[in-house]
Amino acid sequence: MTVARTVELEGHIIDSGMMQQCFGVVMDLGGNFDVDVFEVGKHKDEESYCRMTVKADDEESLREILHELHQNGAHLPDPPNATLKPAPQDQVVPQGFYSTTNHPTQVRYEGEWLPVENIEMDCVVVVDPDADGGPRAYTKVLNAVEEGDLIVTDEAGVRVDPPERPRGSGSPFGFMQGGVSAERPSESLIRKIAEAIEETKAEGGSVLAVAGPALVHSGAGDALARLVREGYVDMLSAGNGFAVHDLERGQYGTSLGMDVETLENPRKGHKHHIYTISEIVRAGGIEEAVEQGLVEDGVMYECVDNDVPYVLAGSIRDDGPLPDTITDAVEAQNAIREQAREADLVLMLATLLHSVAVGNCLSSTTRVVCVDINPATVTQLLDRGSAQAIGMVTDVGTFVPALADEVVGDP
Amino acid sequence: MTVARTVELEGHIIDSGMMQQCFGVVMDLGGNFDVDVFEVGKHKDEESYCRMTVKADDEESLREILHELHQNGAHLPDPPNATLKPAPQDQVVPQGFYSTTNHPTQVRYEGEWLPVENIEMDCVVVVDPDADGGPRAYTKVLNAVEEGDLIVTDEAGVRVDPPERPRGSGSPFGFMQGGVSAERPSESLIRKIAEAIEETKAEGGSVLAVAGPALVHSGAGDALARLVREGYVDMLSAGNGFAVHDLERGQYGTSLGMDVETLENPRKGHKHHIYTISEIVRAGGIEEAVEQGLVEDGVMYECVDNDVPYVLAGSIRDDGPLPDTITDAVEAQNAIREQAREADLVLMLATLLHSVAVGNCLSSTTRVVCVDINPATVTQLLDRGSAQAIGMVTDVGTFVPALADEVVGDP
Amino acid sequence: MTVARTVELEGHIIDSGMMQQCFGVVMDLGGNFDVDVFEVGKHKDEESYCRMTVKADDEESLREILHELHQNGAHLPDPPNATLKPAPQDQVVPQGFYSTTNHPTQVRYEGEWLPVENIEMDCVVVVDPDADGGPRAYTKVLNAVEEGDLIVTDEAGVRVDPPERPRGSGSPFGFMQGGVSAERPSESLIRKIAEAIEETKAEGGSVLAVAGPALVHSGAGDALARLVREGYVDMLSAGNGFAVHDLERGQYGTSLGMDVETLENPRKGHKHHIYTISEIVRAGGIEEAVEQGLVEDGVMYECVDNDVPYVLAGSIRDDGPLPDTITDAVEAQNAIREQAREADLVLMLATLLHSVAVGNCLSSTTRVVCVDINPATVTQLLDRGSAQAIGMVTDVGTFVPALADEVVGDP
Amino acid sequence: MTVARTVELEGHIIDSGMMQQCFGVVMDLGGNFDVDVFEVGKHKDEESYCRMTVKADDEESLREILHELHQNGAHLPDPPNATLKPAPQDQVVPQGFYSTTNHPTQVRYEGEWLPVENIEMDCVVVVDPDADGGPRAYTKVLNAVEEGDLIVTDEAGVRVDPPERPRGSGSPFGFMQGGVSAERPSESLIRKIAEAIEETKAEGGSVLAVAGPALVHSGAGDALARLVREGYVDMLSAGNGFAVHDLERGQYGTSLGMDVETLENPRKGHKHHIYTISEIVRAGGIEEAVEQGLVEDGVMYECVDNDVPYVLAGSIRDDGPLPDTITDAVEAQNAIREQAREADLVLMLATLLHSVAVGNCLSSTTRVVCVDINPATVTQLLDRGSAQAIGMVTDVGTFVPALADEVVGDP
Repeated sequence: MTVARTVELEGHIIDSGMMQQCFGVVMDLGGNFDVDVFEVGKHKDEESYCRMTVKADDEESLREILHELHQNGAHLPDPPNATLKPAPQDQVVPQGFYSTTNHPTQVRYEGEWLPVENIEMDCVVVVDPDADGGPRAYTKVLNAVEEGDLIVTDEAGVRVDPPERPRGSGSPFGFMQGGVSAERPSESLIRKIAEAIEETKAEGGSVLAVAGPALVHSGAGDALARLVREGYVDMLSAGNGFAVHDLERGQYGTSLGMDVETLENPRKGHKHHIYTISEIVRAGGIEEAVEQGLVEDGVMYECVDNDVPYVLAGSIRDDGPLPDTITDAVEAQNAIREQAREADLVLMLATLLHSVAVGNCLSSTTRVVCVDINPATVTQLLDRGSAQAIGMVTDVGTFVPALADEVVGDP
Repeated sequence: MTVARTVELEGHIIDSGMMQQCFGVVMDLGGNFDVDVFEVGKHKDEESYCRMTVKADDEESLREILHELHQNGAHLPDPPNATLKPAPQDQVVPQGFYSTTNHPTQVRYEGEWLPVENIEMDCVVVVDPDADGGPRAYTKVLNAVEEGDLIVTDEAGVRVDPPERPRGSGSPFGFMQGGVSAERPSESLIRKIAEAIEETKAEGGSVLAVAGPALVHSGAGDALARLVREGYVDMLSAGNGFAVHDLERGQYGTSLGMDVETLENPRKGHKHHIYTISEIVRAGGIEEAVEQGLVEDGVMYECVDNDVPYVLAGSIRDDGPLPDTITDAVEAQNAIREQAREADLVLMLATLLHSVAVGNCLSSTTRVVCVDINPATVTQLLDRGSAQAIGMVTDVGTFVPALADEVVGDP
Repeated sequence: MTVARTVELEGHIIDSGMMQQCFGVVMDLGGNFDVDVFEVGKHKDEESYCRMTVKADDEESLREILHELHQNGAHLPDPPNATLKPAPQDQVVPQGFYSTTNHPTQVRYEGEWLPVENIEMDCVVVVDPDADGGPRAYTKVLNAVEEGDLIVTDEAGVRVDPPERPRGSGSPFGFMQGGVSAERPSESLIRKIAEAIEETKAEGGSVLAVAGPALVHSGAGDALARLVREGYVDMLSAGNGFAVHDLERGQYGTSLGMDVETLENPRKGHKHHIYTISEIVRAGGIEEAVEQGLVEDGVMYECVDNDVPYVLAGSIRDDGPLPDTITDAVEAQNAIREQAREADLVLMLATLLHSVAVGNCLSSTTRVVCVDINPATVTQLLDRGSAQAIGMVTDVGTFVPALADEVVGDP
Repeated sequence: MTVARTVELEGHIIDSGMMQQCFGVVMDLGGNFDVDVFEVGKHKDEESYCRMTVKADDEESLREILHELHQNGAHLPDPPNATLKPAPQDQVVPQGFYSTTNHPTQVRYEGEWLPVENIEMDCVVVVDPDADGGPRAYTKVLNAVEEGDLIVTDEAGVRVDPPERPRGSGSPFGFMQGGVSAERPSESLIRKIAEAIEETKAEGGSVLAVAGPALVHSGAGDALARLVREGYVDMLSAGNGFAVHDLERGQYGTSLGMDVETLENPRKGHKHHIYTISEIVRAGGIEEAVEQGLVEDGVMYECVDNDVPYVLAGSIRDDGPLPDTITDAVEAQNAIREQAREADLVLMLATLLHSVAVGNCLSSTTRVVCVDINPATVTQLLDRGSAQAIGMVTDVGTFVPALADEVVGDP
């Protein structure tokens, strides 16, 4: 028995890769297809349209194919309203719930398309018919689901719009092709990243820096502090370790006991590290420590001094933690999510853990710059699928100073 | 002005590297020394003794040198009692507090040497004079410090005993020389690791497995489940992600949506992942899900079925989390610490985050086996300084099955 | 001024990615296009056809675009004969020479399409009008070009056919999607690779193993020897170092002085290494050493014993070299080229240098299996563009034994 | 039966690690020892002396132990003359030949110590009794051994002096402790490396740069050219690929077809690459191409213009090769050896193959700076054992410009 269903593709379906992926999905999953209509945009700025009949051997296979097609932007013609089922219990989803991509998404409710607010990967979509100002649809992570939430199930009535990738030389993001490699011209690439930051700021956008402790160890703390001071970083997302290393460096000139300038005594001097935390605890927190004159420079100092909000997330590796650190993973994720939603460009600097956490909360339309010395880290982060992403395999210890010189000017 | 102080070294000071490190410390830190007495063990089983006068240009430099010498096992002759100062506040340490190494340590109290209980790196030592059964000394992490705790400050009255490294072919740990490399005979090395596990079990010791999600993705879940079932793993330490992948594989045969046997549909199918969590939430937890027959095999199943305790620590990357996951980093650390203290051999399998967290809580006398495909991870973990450590750069997906065959026998 | 040219795409232009790449090329290079005709295959087995007019601002840009389109399989309608220019000098090419891809290629000569023999990347195409049996076209590397060779210039009259990628579960190569990752089920993947070898042998094909010295260090020499003995390896390509380590292991049971079984004495004992070479020199070569009973097992022994031809290429890192080693890079490349052309499946095992050298000489239709513990190596090798390629990030020391067990059966 | 032998250790035997290693060797190899005399230098500038009796179960084990002790600097009291045996044949060594370390070495001939000239690892020592000016001893690699050469066998009469490692802040090399890590302050480390270069030049020493093609791809070619032009690089060692990429960049502004400034057209345009070689062949070589005005800038241009000698070694990966490239591995090694012997500081920049080849020819007293983005490469190169080595895990594309700015001044 063969079962079949018609789907449509619309937009820049060739250039965005949507058509190729959709054809590939059908074949990979053992299906077949007939192309019924194919109108290709004559010029590169025209949209295209394709309608095809997808066939499979059984309903189960067909459903799987349609699921994948859907994630890649195909949709059903004459779409029905989305199916809504109440969550049976807090943190429990109805069977067949719709799990989001990070692409802009709409759900059909009473014949109208509602944009899904705060789109983010691997969430459920809740429809609130009784919201002030009319029905709304928005994402919820599993742990936020409450009994009775009306949750979208199945793909019917859901529409996904994978964004086009920028092309050519119009945008700093336009030139990236062919993945991540250490063998690109580093200085030219840094200039492109500087342009991307400047462009974002010129458009009134917000820059979120995500930074790991390696940034401080590699001596780039001053340069990041400079970017904060000069207004090129609007939010900071980091871990307890980053903040402690930065504060230790401010107080002792050392990072894990090594003098960052002279490289002397490179022994594992964790004592400064612990004492730094103890002193911040005594002061009552980072802001209080700055006010009391205990901390006089560094990234955290500049954040306090320039009202740049920061989220410090705890982890099981931490010493301390600092009073400012959010030790509960769910709470920390929520704080990260708030920042991620406001960000127009995210600089991921030498941290896999925090970059993944932030990346999980981003829409595919957010610009991402990812810098790490480990090519596997850069690849993993870019694979999460921003349409506008620059990856660079380099040393954060030379990268951040060079970027600051490029953006702010030589010191 | 020259200031001087006499220190002693005792034990296998040559073979343990203690003497070389101590001489190096003095020179690196700009000091000088006279060797006053040097009695070398005539045979390899005899202990040696060295007394030397260390000199520096000022008290500050001398203190720094003595601090480092102390960490490497040197001690002052005619040791005074340790200096105790009360913690001025919760989570605040007195200035000059003594920060622990992970080596066996004693503190001198009223003329007696008290062994420091639960030794672990980067802690403070608290002396409780009024404990039942007489005075006790034990470690506390910073966040456990309570106002009024009597905290050891300075090195005076503290004694550190860096353990000897095992040599020759007597122990499976004896053969490791010259660091980590991918270019060692893999099958022979796996046999050595199997011997280490068998030896530990034969001595009545406990094996703690620390496992990352890559273990499940790489298809090694069945093999680890077999090791649990056959009694070669006594405790499990992992993250929320590991448990969810394992449970998803048990329920759907997939890991992040990929069929682990046929490799079909290797798409990023996070839906199974989320649904797995939702179902475990509905059941009330992993143990309940096993009891209800929802989960019938896998690592978590075997843990429940064989009363193998597990700690699942949360992180900001998590979906869910599962009801069993400890989301607070401080609480999770405390749970990890309890496990680490009971472990005689720790198997670190393809996870940096959890391995570092566990490694932070270990004494240098605990056996450690660390396996990862990234050489930098193995190096970083072994650098934390167990005296008995085996590192192996290999694929956890072939390693765990081969280890299980070696330990349990062919399936 | 706008200049324009019409090009055609034919075949599985959607599923092979050809169409998407061609559209992308035009836009990346600042051009524009009109789609004049687009007939899409209705079923997945039908070919498609597209004719489009490509426009650019000047001839230079247009030529560049056409060059890239051509490399991706587009061709001009009503193709002219290929332009032939004589090489002005040995090892010198005429300006505008056509540089080959590794895809099947034809050139038009006197109104006929001649298949280009021995297709390989980055070569010139020479047409010999006076060959026995009629005109022939074949590749030459630069250093083989002789004065007066008739060399194809420009893309006119050249046709490239990028092969389709296999899909679905029909072929062991069909399941690979989404690049290289260490996080795949290792044992399942090894079974797929075993199938690919068995399939190749069943079709009467030849398997070429390319092996690095790490294979011997990691203890996999016996397993590779077993594959040679049992007829699963038809040719061997390696370096001087591989052969010496293998021969040393046969004579002394050591590899660079380490006992591969007991792991004892893991010191850098280069003396065995040098002495092994010296003894092979004394014997007159590897074959003579086998005949004289000096070498009684190992990979090289099995090659001699089973008439499996080997190419040993020299490098500036070598000790010795062995009498069998080809020390001249150009001569060695030619020998490698001969092997590569005969191979139907190439196993690249833990060597970047030799794998790149072999890979340079392969057509895109040759099957490639690439195994290395460094993900960057696997990525780099697969990027060279075989249509049928499996990459695996694993430990060659566990991989080769597991593969031999799978292919040959348990020992 | 126990067999025994007395050995001596002299010099900075504690601080150089010699004593610890010697004690370790005996124990690892299953022997035992009595310390007969131990006079420790009272101050850090005084030498120490140790005489010990080494025991083993049989002659074979004892010989092995003595061999390892010898390599670590122990020697026999009342040393006999070295045993000399004639090479039985070209490229064949007598059994039991002495294989060199890279430490300064002397051999005893007719009661006198002859320094071994051109010391290098894994060589034989030839004594020429009839040399002009009296007996000489020097190293030969295996392929240079001629029938009848008098070759030192066994360790008797050979003396090895492992150099001390520099300490403290006196030398830029003094600060490196505890191996390679990406987590060091990059800019401070670059300043240290600049100091090392300046110090070497100030002492009249020679700097040898060893460079890989990644240096050009990452856009650092101009900076290296600047260092050559300003006299900070006295010799260049590279491969055919490096030179072609550099020359291509000079002629076309591209590297493998990518515009190094604008990053445009980052396609794999090998055509420029081949054409560059063809044009250099036509000119007759690099020097001729410079003279004819074909090449006007870049590293190779500056080498020609400033009489900086270069060695270009061929490999089986090469296109071309250039007329200047030495394609025979043995000849190329000899040319590299000549350079290595003249070098006082070697800069290894982003190439494993050429760095290993150069490193093989260096004495342990030569200064080495090794820079690569892959930590495994840096570790492997530093493990080869220079006493004065700096390793840095960073991006050569930002490193070389920053180094040039530091050494030459801002451009």
